[in-house]
Amino acid sequence: MNDRADQPLLLSDCQQGILRLTLNDPARRNALSQALMAELATVLQSAADDSAVRVIVIAANGPAFCAGHDLKEITAARAEPDKGLALFERLIDSCAVLMQQIANHPKPIIAEVAGVATAAGCQLVASCDLAVAAESARFATPGVNIGLFCSTPMVALSRNVHTKHAMELLLLGDMVSAQRAEQIGLINHAVAEEELTATAMAMAAKIASKSSYTLQVGKQAFYNQLHKPLDEAYRYTAQVMVNNLLAADANEGICAFIDKRPPQWQDC
Amino acid sequence: MNDRADQPLLLSDCQQGILRLTLNDPARRNALSQALMAELATVLQSAADDSAVRVIVIAANGPAFCAGHDLKEITAARAEPDKGLALFERLIDSCAVLMQQIANHPKPIIAEVAGVATAAGCQLVASCDLAVAAESARFATPGVNIGLFCSTPMVALSRNVHTKHAMELLLLGDMVSAQRAEQIGLINHAVAEEELTATAMAMAAKIASKSSYTLQVGKQAFYNQLHKPLDEAYRYTAQVMVNNLLAADANEGICAFIDKRPPQWQDC
Amino acid sequence: MNDRADQPLLLSDCQQGILRLTLNDPARRNALSQALMAELATVLQSAADDSAVRVIVIAANGPAFCAGHDLKEITAARAEPDKGLALFERLIDSCAVLMQQIANHPKPIIAEVAGVATAAGCQLVASCDLAVAAESARFATPGVNIGLFCSTPMVALSRNVHTKHAMELLLLGDMVSAQRAEQIGLINHAVAEEELTATAMAMAAKIASKSSYTLQVGKQAFYNQLHKPLDEAYRYTAQVMVNNLLAADANEGICAFIDKRPPQWQDC
Repeated sequence: MNDRADQPLLLSDCQQGILRLTLNDPARRNALSQALMAELATVLQSAADDSAVRVIVIAANGPAFCAGHDLKEITAARAEPDKGLALFERLIDSCAVLMQQIANHPKPIIAEVAGVATAAGCQLVASCDLAVAAESARFATPGVNIGLFCSTPMVALSRNVHTKHAMELLLLGDMVSAQRAEQIGLINHAVAEEELTATAMAMAAKIASKSSYTLQVGKQAFYNQLHKPLDEAYRYTAQVMVNNLLAADANEGICAFIDKRPPQWQDC
Repeated sequence: MNDRADQPLLLSDCQQGILRLTLNDPARRNALSQALMAELATVLQSAADDSAVRVIVIAANGPAFCAGHDLKEITAARAEPDKGLALFERLIDSCAVLMQQIANHPKPIIAEVAGVATAAGCQLVASCDLAVAAESARFATPGVNIGLFCSTPMVALSRNVHTKHAMELLLLGDMVSAQRAEQIGLINHAVAEEELTATAMAMAAKIASKSSYTLQVGKQAFYNQLHKPLDEAYRYTAQVMVNNLLAADANEGICAFIDKRPPQWQDC
Repeated sequence: MNDRADQPLLLSDCQQGILRLTLNDPARRNALSQALMAELATVLQSAADDSAVRVIVIAANGPAFCAGHDLKEITAARAEPDKGLALFERLIDSCAVLMQQIANHPKPIIAEVAGVATAAGCQLVASCDLAVAAESARFATPGVNIGLFCSTPMVALSRNVHTKHAMELLLLGDMVSAQRAEQIGLINHAVAEEELTATAMAMAAKIASKSSYTLQVGKQAFYNQLHKPLDEAYRYTAQVMVNNLLAADANEGICAFIDKRPPQWQDC
């Protein structure tokens, strides 16, 4: 899947429960090409069942975090007899599947954003559970500037920020600062550039210290309940909570808390 | 529909793709009387199909942006044999239809708010895609003060701001500043009064420079996907995105971007 | 229901339309034990039909506002033959019912938060219609630290704040300041500790001056419309609004407003 045999499109490093993924196609501004999306999907899928992975950080090399789809890939496909239809469907579908894979992933996923995150790159940030960015990072859904509204990115965007803030990004297509992104809820925190990685990794380390079982139960329940009416959401999460109470890690965690000692998770 | 033959209730001016509508009933604080709502509905409807209109700004003359329904119109109707029922139904229904006409309108609509925007006037601001206000503007859903809860305004309000912020406005009925409105997401930006019109018109001009086709596709998809579960929202917008990619303006926009030249929209 | 015969778990005082409830189990950090939840449910139920109660404030004695469930109660139940299942189901169900009782209650309910509000205590704050807190108050959903994800608290939390902010609280389990809680929308205002009660009571007094009928209509309609698609929400609230217009208090309120005199509510 990688057209640069000597340089992987995606770097992957797992230490102390933290899987750190680094988008590594700086020359194409880490565009979500078919090749890169396929690598991300594969790595995420194997991380789902890998007990060594407790939390995931997605970072990037180069001046751009991620510039969205690869416009040259799109333009090249227009020469096909179907005017690109097959590729467009594959591309947009792969991207929508990838973003849902992040939401449905059993491990928490943190975006660590330096540089610009635009279009599907902004969607990637919005799709992660948490996001921290350098103060110099910038965000945009600029599709409207090239006649291609950011209609799939807005699914994630509009589930993160207020309607008027989403509309401002979508209709104007302008870059906004990390400070504005923090203010509207697109990211959790904007930090000094030199503290970015340390901040994201400290957040990841804290999450890696929790019970993996509990994180999985909670993250899954979070997205499942989000759009339910209140009574259905409570019916559903009450069952989740009772099951969680019966699990080994809740027993251990509560005993450790009462005994004032660190818990020993069994991750089940 | 206009009871002041020499002074239209609604001023309308279209230049360079920007349709500027000005509520012009300052003596009644631009109350959403039946007459004014009917004029707004008519103008919006004809603007929907008018290719000269690419974006709409709603402003107002006088010290109030819009004071909601016309209480004298309501009180007068109580003398009717039905105690006002027929008028109340017509009034509330017209207003709800008007607000949905704004959301369903193919062109982006910007509220430019000077003065107070209360009750259905606050709903009008909340219903627009974008809103800018003078720092001196103020906002309220004060129905609770007159025994008439702002139940239809809250539909738009609660889709713009967090629950506790909506409840604060609705249960207390107090005026809040433009700064607070900006903070909670009811408006995009509060600006100095003397810069209000320039700010709104610059925003409009930027939007008018985009492809009308793309704006229409995107705005419609935005509201259509907003309340769907994640997977349905992605299924729906992925189809929207593929169709958009096959449209002339996306082809032109992407080529222009790659060639580093301004795009020439065909608006299709 | 009270195991400390000389000291009620819940203090209750009604003056000038304001029912002030004070959680009074400081030794257990006002944990939502079965006994305390039962008292709260009973008091709330009788307040629903009590015309002397126009608004409710929930405050607390001691350094903690409310520390969530009683972990010792949970741990003790594990010795049962069913390993606690019956108690867990009763506990979680009672709590979910209590939180929905607050949302479904005909009177507005304000949380007045001093000290820490954690887990189901944070959920209690999120479930109230309005919340004010001392600047020194702190908030957390720390279940993840003890292997028991705050899955039911997150139902209320995620209906108050943006997704990434909810996830930050849930996945990290850290305490956040009242300032941060205000910023993300979990509470309406953070105020100086010495002004907390005065602020909450002033808010309550203002609400108590409104028509109880109108407050009930509006609060109920608010939560009923919140998750409906736009057109359904408008169809529903338009009917609510027309009925409200035909009620005595709307007639009185509008007449009083036009006559510039204070209204005399009949609360119907």
